[in-house]
Amino acid sequence: MSEEMRTNEAAQTLDGWYSLHDFRTVDWSAWRTLSSDERQAAVHEFLGLLEKWGIAEQEDRGSQALYSIVGQKADFMLMILRPTMEELNEIEMEFNKSLLAEYTIPSGSYVSVVELSNYMGGDGDPYENPHVRSRLYPKLPESKHVCFYPMDKRRQGNDNWYMLPMEERRSLMRSHGMIGRQYAGKVKQIITGSVGFDDYEWGVTLFADDVLQFKKLVYEMRFDEVSARYGEFGSFFVGNLLSRDRIHSFLYI
Amino acid sequence: MSEEMRTNEAAQTLDGWYSLHDFRTVDWSAWRTLSSDERQAAVHEFLGLLEKWGIAEQEDRGSQALYSIVGQKADFMLMILRPTMEELNEIEMEFNKSLLAEYTIPSGSYVSVVELSNYMGGDGDPYENPHVRSRLYPKLPESKHVCFYPMDKRRQGNDNWYMLPMEERRSLMRSHGMIGRQYAGKVKQIITGSVGFDDYEWGVTLFADDVLQFKKLVYEMRFDEVSARYGEFGSFFVGNLLSRDRIHSFLYI
Amino acid sequence: MSEEMRTNEAAQTLDGWYSLHDFRTVDWSAWRTLSSDERQAAVHEFLGLLEKWGIAEQEDRGSQALYSIVGQKADFMLMILRPTMEELNEIEMEFNKSLLAEYTIPSGSYVSVVELSNYMGGDGDPYENPHVRSRLYPKLPESKHVCFYPMDKRRQGNDNWYMLPMEERRSLMRSHGMIGRQYAGKVKQIITGSVGFDDYEWGVTLFADDVLQFKKLVYEMRFDEVSARYGEFGSFFVGNLLSRDRIHSFLYI
Amino acid sequence: MSEEMRTNEAAQTLDGWYSLHDFRTVDWSAWRTLSSDERQAAVHEFLGLLEKWGIAEQEDRGSQALYSIVGQKADFMLMILRPTMEELNEIEMEFNKSLLAEYTIPSGSYVSVVELSNYMGGDGDPYENPHVRSRLYPKLPESKHVCFYPMDKRRQGNDNWYMLPMEERRSLMRSHGMIGRQYAGKVKQIITGSVGFDDYEWGVTLFADDVLQFKKLVYEMRFDEVSARYGEFGSFFVGNLLSRDRIHSFLYI
Amino acid sequence: MSEEMRTNEAAQTLDGWYSLHDFRTVDWSAWRTLSSDERQAAVHEFLGLLEKWGIAEQEDRGSQALYSIVGQKADFMLMILRPTMEELNEIEMEFNKSLLAEYTIPSGSYVSVVELSNYMGGDGDPYENPHVRSRLYPKLPESKHVCFYPMDKRRQGNDNWYMLPMEERRSLMRSHGMIGRQYAGKVKQIITGSVGFDDYEWGVTLFADDVLQFKKLVYEMRFDEVSARYGEFGSFFVGNLLSRDRIHSFLYI
Repeated sequence: MSEEMRTNEAAQTLDGWYSLHDFRTVDWSAWRTLSSDERQAAVHEFLGLLEKWGIAEQEDRGSQALYSIVGQKADFMLMILRPTMEELNEIEMEFNKSLLAEYTIPSGSYVSVVELSNYMGGDGDPYENPHVRSRLYPKLPESKHVCFYPMDKRRQGNDNWYMLPMEERRSLMRSHGMIGRQYAGKVKQIITGSVGFDDYEWGVTLFADDVLQFKKLVYEMRFDEVSARYGEFGSFFVGNLLSRDRIHSFLYI
Repeated sequence: MSEEMRTNEAAQTLDGWYSLHDFRTVDWSAWRTLSSDERQAAVHEFLGLLEKWGIAEQEDRGSQALYSIVGQKADFMLMILRPTMEELNEIEMEFNKSLLAEYTIPSGSYVSVVELSNYMGGDGDPYENPHVRSRLYPKLPESKHVCFYPMDKRRQGNDNWYMLPMEERRSLMRSHGMIGRQYAGKVKQIITGSVGFDDYEWGVTLFADDVLQFKKLVYEMRFDEVSARYGEFGSFFVGNLLSRDRIHSFLYI
Repeated sequence: MSEEMRTNEAAQTLDGWYSLHDFRTVDWSAWRTLSSDERQAAVHEFLGLLEKWGIAEQEDRGSQALYSIVGQKADFMLMILRPTMEELNEIEMEFNKSLLAEYTIPSGSYVSVVELSNYMGGDGDPYENPHVRSRLYPKLPESKHVCFYPMDKRRQGNDNWYMLPMEERRSLMRSHGMIGRQYAGKVKQIITGSVGFDDYEWGVTLFADDVLQFKKLVYEMRFDEVSARYGEFGSFFVGNLLSRDRIHSFLYI
Repeated sequence: MSEEMRTNEAAQTLDGWYSLHDFRTVDWSAWRTLSSDERQAAVHEFLGLLEKWGIAEQEDRGSQALYSIVGQKADFMLMILRPTMEELNEIEMEFNKSLLAEYTIPSGSYVSVVELSNYMGGDGDPYENPHVRSRLYPKLPESKHVCFYPMDKRRQGNDNWYMLPMEERRSLMRSHGMIGRQYAGKVKQIITGSVGFDDYEWGVTLFADDVLQFKKLVYEMRFDEVSARYGEFGSFFVGNLLSRDRIHSFLYI
Repeated sequence: MSEEMRTNEAAQTLDGWYSLHDFRTVDWSAWRTLSSDERQAAVHEFLGLLEKWGIAEQEDRGSQALYSIVGQKADFMLMILRPTMEELNEIEMEFNKSLLAEYTIPSGSYVSVVELSNYMGGDGDPYENPHVRSRLYPKLPESKHVCFYPMDKRRQGNDNWYMLPMEERRSLMRSHGMIGRQYAGKVKQIITGSVGFDDYEWGVTLFADDVLQFKKLVYEMRFDEVSARYGEFGSFFVGNLLSRDRIHSFLYI
């Protein structure tokens, strides 16, 4: 077995900001019990946190996005990018200790790091390449919709991604990537690696103004061999942008 | 592998209204603690919401259905169709902020979009075809019974739907569809696509006046190769129409 | 594939009364907080419901059985048979709105319909056959013990029941049934179909005075090819008859 | 298939006392709210129950064991053996209605019956054999440690225990048993059958004074074909003897 | 099958201190309800416990580590090593009975024993070898980050680790170990065996100052045949050192 060991070596990755997807459900019954003033105070404090976190974005030390989630899996998702795990943990704690948090129920999270795969190689130190940097340390877009799901590459019987020779994986990923590129301008995709950090191997976060493009992209990819034979998918979350303006009406009772 | 790539390309779909299936369990113990007047007020507010949402139906901007669910998985299901994800989210929030919601426990939801498969093709712009439009933007029937379940097409060893050539998938779907057609007039079927939106790939919602037809239809299909080899099914929910009249007795203690 | 389509057609079934298995756990801590009189009132109301439901049994319009469940999966199970789904829903609601229900926690349910398989065929309209009728509309026995479990026929790789030709399924079921017949007089078996109604394809409810016969029967069947290769089993529940007399001591603190 | 049906017939079993493994987690927060006297009263009542149940052991009408469980799966496990399911249910209810139970949370249970496999046969009525009787109706040892796990024999593709001819199963079990026998004097093993009673086919309860012997025994067996190819294992619980003396300090705050 | 039985015998292991990974989530809402003084008292008591447990470490009778966990799986993890299961149970109980515990929710635990595999053999009594001893009875490092996950060796169809001959397992483990060695100085790895103690076969605890090294190590290993074909992984937890200093700010509101 595996006579020529280097053929199935690990693909090199480039790693950027650490990422936390934090899903919360509002405990509406408890939220109702507050007076209008108390609710106002909690919203005010939450907006203050968003503003504070926004400074990092202005200073290129991170980014964040806030979306309401459709269906009962969660009511909203906060996605945070930062240079260190400690900062993610800190922001998570800041939220946990806020007034609003007292009226929310944790309903899922995902810990990962922005990742670029080196399958296609390149010249020079990629960490100095401005295009690469903009993808490793991205400013999250304010698209109307978000889609998040975690995924694994399958290791099952004859469908074992990790036993394929590097060359075959590279070729499969190349044609897989070509599907994604057809959606350029319609869907922005951020891949985060989570091996060693969370239960799946990758997180996929998609942003689009036309929510139907998520379905089209993911469905088209599913017929590509990389997904068809080797993709294992976790839960899918879909949501709508929760701009500062909408936060008030979202939490208003 | 996959020399002739176009053979396993994705089937084109037509997509209509977005759909939310929202399942709730009544917290009967808490509901009991209310005075009869308080319960009456909550029911009244809920009927008002249904009336408000009903306007969209009258104006062909959506549709909804309300069914009680048999067994402990949920007490009732609200199914909502709307042109945008934002509207689904809004209706969901309106319910969450209602008095009645305070006495219910979320017990499952499904986010999808009404979908017609193009496997059988056709002439002209299908979105202009009145027959197609009536299926993409359907008025939900007031049948006595509903059945809902989500499903995937299997990708497992030799039973991998997504690795089949388009031609074979089309032929399999054709004979599969013929079973469904035998139930025309007995069972109305609405297929919603959920790739990229929720955890399964499709939702299936069936409506019938004779509840036994659900069992006959699903069982007969299970012997068809599409289901037998390629179907993966989630939870099944079955219920009875919760007409305005029945809502009062349903919530009466 | 499947050149001779009719060979793997669905077996015809005969369908009788609809069935609800309703499992509940007593919230003993809350139950303790009641005064003896309050507990007495709740028990009294529950006995009244049982009496009311018993009328349907006397009039051959249904049947029911009440068993305590051993272990922590549930404290008791109410099994109800009725001609319509609406009646099941009504009885479920009647219980939910009772005083006792306030002190119980739903811990599982199963929705199905009494089913006879036509694998072995027969002459004349089976729905007119008195023997068939007694099995489709059975009076549940008052055996000392009950055993319930849901099951599927497997569709996995080479072990795919639904891809077998009808003739092979029929022959396999015949020898399977012969095992069951050896337990005639010791174990009464009621098969309920749940395709389209609940998460498994069938529910199996066994009644016996000697609880060990459940183990012997299920274990012996497991070596039969139908179970060995094609059976997928859900949770098993085993219990003891909760006669009217025992209800008092069961709920007495 | 299966031309010579008797070759894969079910192994005969000998069945002894019924068994309930009852796992509980202490609700320490609630327990703290009691006064020292109230806690003392609850402990006293619990010790009284243990004493009462102990009489059955003295009279050879059953046995029981109490162990604290390491880790968060549970805080303690009560294992009970009795001649009937009704008695198990009664003891379970006696505990449920006790003061202490109010401060515990059910965290798993297992219903089974002490089982001896007849794979190796023997002469005469085994139920009269004193050695067999001592194993079917065992007095549970007071070893320092306990280990419990449920298990199935696999039915998966080519690894299907229930499709093997009896002769092969017998030969495999023989060499499997030889591993167990090497631990004689170090580990006492009680096998309980649960087909038809609970979710796995068997429960395995091990007793030892040296807790490391559990790991050595189970690990060594895992390389034996019976476990390697055919074993499916549920959750493992490991614990320390909770003697009467230790109960006080265990529940003392 | 398995003609030469000794070839797939179990690898011998060396076993050191018993290990408990104890994960807790802070109930921030309840914690907020305390006065600042009450919170201070709870923190003080917790620090006292840590100090007390630290004595064992000073006296080489055990070790412990405390990390905050990123994401919602838990808020912190206490890892404890001790010579006996009884001591693990005692420390667990001491925490459960503390004031702080009242404001935390158990969110997972893992019971195992520090294990060295003898695959590579060696001379003399390994338990007397100082290098071996330092690995069996390790002082946990105060690295900035921790990563924990449980794992199994797969037993599935043709990918059955436990059916491989010893020689092949040894050779596979040798090349697997070489990957680990490339991370010497960057990642410290502690393997704990849990066969018979908990639901997976091993726990892997990694310590590093650069959290990215966890991802690199686990990802690189995943392409090695041992993981690619034979590894089954549970949940991954990643965290940041919770030094005495940070405990105050961590729990401060």
